[in-house]
Amino acid sequence: MRVLALLDGTIVDPEAPLLRADDLGVMRGDGIFETILVVDRRPRELGPHLDRLANSARLMGIALPERAAWERAVRAVVDDWPWETDPEMALKLVCTRGVDGGDGTPTGFAMGMQVGAETLRKRNEGVSAITLERGYAPDLTERAPWLLLGAKSLSYAVNMAAMREAESRGVDEVIFTATDGSVLEGPTSNVVIAKDRVLCTTPPSSGILKGTTQGALFRAAEEHGWRTRVEKFDTADLFAADGVWLASSVRLITQVRTVDGTPVSADADLHAELCKLYESNY
Amino acid sequence: MRVLALLDGTIVDPEAPLLRADDLGVMRGDGIFETILVVDRRPRELGPHLDRLANSARLMGIALPERAAWERAVRAVVDDWPWETDPEMALKLVCTRGVDGGDGTPTGFAMGMQVGAETLRKRNEGVSAITLERGYAPDLTERAPWLLLGAKSLSYAVNMAAMREAESRGVDEVIFTATDGSVLEGPTSNVVIAKDRVLCTTPPSSGILKGTTQGALFRAAEEHGWRTRVEKFDTADLFAADGVWLASSVRLITQVRTVDGTPVSADADLHAELCKLYESNY
Repeated sequence: MRVLALLDGTIVDPEAPLLRADDLGVMRGDGIFETILVVDRRPRELGPHLDRLANSARLMGIALPERAAWERAVRAVVDDWPWETDPEMALKLVCTRGVDGGDGTPTGFAMGMQVGAETLRKRNEGVSAITLERGYAPDLTERAPWLLLGAKSLSYAVNMAAMREAESRGVDEVIFTATDGSVLEGPTSNVVIAKDRVLCTTPPSSGILKGTTQGALFRAAEEHGWRTRVEKFDTADLFAADGVWLASSVRLITQVRTVDGTPVSADADLHAELCKLYESNY
Repeated sequence: MRVLALLDGTIVDPEAPLLRADDLGVMRGDGIFETILVVDRRPRELGPHLDRLANSARLMGIALPERAAWERAVRAVVDDWPWETDPEMALKLVCTRGVDGGDGTPTGFAMGMQVGAETLRKRNEGVSAITLERGYAPDLTERAPWLLLGAKSLSYAVNMAAMREAESRGVDEVIFTATDGSVLEGPTSNVVIAKDRVLCTTPPSSGILKGTTQGALFRAAEEHGWRTRVEKFDTADLFAADGVWLASSVRLITQVRTVDGTPVSADADLHAELCKLYESNY
């Protein structure tokens, strides 16, 4: 099940071709995207997602269509989705730099997709993870903006290759590490640890994407008496923590059960508490 | 002017949409490509390009369509190109992982494009270049195959961002450097230096793409009494060299005139000699 809308709000056939072969999104992975969870017609964290899309566009010099156009496309997909049979939808917003040698008009669309069974399994049962080197020092972001470390670009081949590496090792997920051994992020998630009622996640300045789901979790946690920290931590801290989670828009607050084959603390009550905190936003 | 062919040899309208919105090439930059120069109907280094396409597919686990299909698409584009008005063509081969959640059939096509005026200017007049950090250690390739350092993937946003960085500084080209200060490659080229009748280029084991044009140059150079080396060198060697070039399929053997604002040796006779060596292949 897929529902595809253009930025003018038109619904088009998702199985019909949409992009030219010479679209820079195709030829160079030269574009940006966001993935948003929509539950019972309500998009979650739409504002932060659109903010991040705008930030990615700024970092990559893409002339992003106005916010109202994205909101219109979101509404069109939401209105067209079969909510009676599918109460959750993963909504992808994509903006490419447009046709190579064209007039600079970006190509934009919104696509609603079903939440896959594998995603639901990970969300419900938790995951095994391996650490993989990302190869970067965490202080590169500011110094080397051309590496696009804070942009959610369409150039996601490395993230997908890391997921295949995990799969080939019989593991669900990946936690990327920097050259100094600090924890970065997952290929499609942020890493959150809890220790003594303090939640901690890696700072965007380390070259990772600012998390929208992690942000929603921390916002609710702070309102409920938790302390939060956005600061670097090492892989050793994963094993010393009271719990480790991967936060992502569609998989939500996914409990990590093992890292590199070694169990980490995975308390069911603590997990339920964090999920409840996150859900209290909606 | 564009000519677009599918892998069955069909010519299709290059201005009509070809890819679905949920093609993984669009959504994740999850695919591979090659760019080949065709002069007067003759593709240059077609074998090495198809070999590299196959190697990229292997590194990324893409089920590449058979070589005969690519050769068929190449022939179709070449046969359809208006050679009388345009004696050179840049031919792009693209293969994506196919539709997300589909049956695993890759999406492939071949597209012929005009060689741009800017490319011809660089080829004829030489270029100014800046060095930019790539952020990687040169020994990562073997250790971290998920970083896809040897694959020519569609995830080229960083290469494009580096070119925009150069442009914003009023410079033509980029030379990426590794964390140890060694010279890697350009965003769309290999770096070649000459010193005392020895040609030198960076080894693919440093995490760069094996160059087809550099390979053709070295092959001819070896036949004409030059010595060649494929080994690491530093940015200091750029300034100590008798000449510095960027080798790429369409820009060919491009002479570098300045690096980071400082002139490098740019002898016209030596440049002419290298261009003649390269052309002796055809």
